[in-house]
Amino acid sequence: MELEFLGTGAGSPAKFRNVSSVALKLLDEENAVWLFDVGEGTQHQILRTTIRPRKVDKIFITHLHGDHIFGLPGFLSSRSFQGGEELRPLTIYGPKGIADFVRISLKVSQTHLSYPLRFVELADEGVIFENDKFKVSFCRLDHRIECVGYRIEEKDHPGELLIDKLRAEHVPSGPIYGRIKAGEVVTLPDGRTLDGKDYIGEPQKGRIITILGDTRQTPGILELAQGADVLVHESTFGKGEAKLARNYYHSTCIQAAKIANKAGVKQLLLNHISARYVGPLAAQLQKDAASIFSNVKVVKDFDVIDVPFKKKGEKS
Amino acid sequence: MELEFLGTGAGSPAKFRNVSSVALKLLDEENAVWLFDVGEGTQHQILRTTIRPRKVDKIFITHLHGDHIFGLPGFLSSRSFQGGEELRPLTIYGPKGIADFVRISLKVSQTHLSYPLRFVELADEGVIFENDKFKVSFCRLDHRIECVGYRIEEKDHPGELLIDKLRAEHVPSGPIYGRIKAGEVVTLPDGRTLDGKDYIGEPQKGRIITILGDTRQTPGILELAQGADVLVHESTFGKGEAKLARNYYHSTCIQAAKIANKAGVKQLLLNHISARYVGPLAAQLQKDAASIFSNVKVVKDFDVIDVPFKKKGEKS
Ligand SMILES: [Zn+2]
Ligand SMILES: [Zn+2]
Repeated sequence: MELEFLGTGAGSPAKFRNVSSVALKLLDEENAVWLFDVGEGTQHQILRTTIRPRKVDKIFITHLHGDHIFGLPGFLSSRSFQGGEELRPLTIYGPKGIADFVRISLKVSQTHLSYPLRFVELADEGVIFENDKFKVSFCRLDHRIECVGYRIEEKDHPGELLIDKLRAEHVPSGPIYGRIKAGEVVTLPDGRTLDGKDYIGEPQKGRIITILGDTRQTPGILELAQGADVLVHESTFGKGEAKLARNYYHSTCIQAAKIANKAGVKQLLLNHISARYVGPLAAQLQKDAASIFSNVKVVKDFDVIDVPFKKKGEKS
Repeated sequence: MELEFLGTGAGSPAKFRNVSSVALKLLDEENAVWLFDVGEGTQHQILRTTIRPRKVDKIFITHLHGDHIFGLPGFLSSRSFQGGEELRPLTIYGPKGIADFVRISLKVSQTHLSYPLRFVELADEGVIFENDKFKVSFCRLDHRIECVGYRIEEKDHPGELLIDKLRAEHVPSGPIYGRIKAGEVVTLPDGRTLDGKDYIGEPQKGRIITILGDTRQTPGILELAQGADVLVHESTFGKGEAKLARNYYHSTCIQAAKIANKAGVKQLLLNHISARYVGPLAAQLQKDAASIFSNVKVVKDFDVIDVPFKKKGEKS
């Protein structure tokens, strides 16, 4: 599981930061890549990565500002030209209006996609996707227009069968191992009774990723970020600019660091960096945030962040 | 007067060719830049040039396929953020549907432009813009959807007053020079009569640029290209692919060269190059076209082509 940042800028493309897009690479888990926002030029950025558009089967949109959606029609069209095996359906989640924008863009340009396209427009807060491995939910944030953040929770992996322990106790291998792994109480041929639960290792906690749209500070952030392994938080403004941030419906690096602390996240990634913050100024955003929350990084375009499992015994 | 190619590829962006856009730089003539088509990422390409979005006051769209229009909403939005003096109005010319696409994209994203935006949707073929220096007309072409080509004609510059000749004939300077330059017949104080027309140099022929959208071969091309200084013609296919080209509503480099010959143009620029033609293969397109029309070039992204005035006496 990795996050790859395709666009980390704010508002308009700049020379070294494209407008918003983040890829959540779930290649081992789902053989899929999920995109969060698709600013103009996202497909161009993808050309410079190893991401294959055919693997993108879910797109989550935080809000309908142009710097977060104008790359959608082009990405969807180009995905259509991917040859080879049949293309998987693609689902777009986002605020009301996203389906209109995409459908009209495709209609005007007479683009006929070679795969099914589905839309889930956001209504009641909560879970919008769930399968055996992942659960995705959203909360509303506080931006100039309707804007949401997403929480992606991986389900816990059950613990492994403690084969060494079974061998040490001379439990003969066979189909009975399957019943032990399933946590059943079993009786062995020699009359001993074993509780499966004693022979299963600790479950592996699933990982939690929180990706926010543009926002002022608002209670929904805490709810989304609680205990996350990674929190991707906007940092359109810097230290001492809380008033400006509030006026423009954005956050500062300091506010992001404070909420990361409060929510007990493991890592904070700051994106949506204004073109005013280049070079050393972006480093200053990170430094200022780090004075409050140390495991923080101002991400750049094409940064890849690995999201490891928690180590056994690490507090979640 | 220069042409700057911002995107010379076909269909989808490729690593070295973006989707369609050409800038006609009229900085000396109009203090303006006109864009022809605005594929996704055009604003990103512009960031790498000296073109200032505020100077773009006309955009001509050849057709509504995504690779020719998906960069419009983003370009228009970003132009809005250009600080400084008040922004000039911008006019978009294009097939019916272009206004809907732009208006809905701006509406959904709640983008409020800081300058007036006007639309001229194309109806009857002919002149769509004219001022004291330029005339722009269009003809329909033959593509899968409605598609046009544009002919930009610069008006002739009147000849200069032949001051040396007037001095040699001892014509006293004064307001009378203005009347002579205007071509009037004047009577001098010493009784001589002069025909102003004899004292004006050859007029400077205006330049003609023809920029086509995607097309099969069709009579409109000849009409648009007749006597042009530069013809920008698509070359989606290569030598020996006329049948493929026809099936896909495109042209080959050979067809472009033939029509350049027939129309008596001075220079042929081939664009809309498929990703199948990379490196030496693109050079082959040029070589094949050059066997029929020698002054031909397969353009690349960021190529700048100067369009000089015809030399005096050069056949037009
Ligand atoms: Zn934004
Ligand atoms: Zn095209």
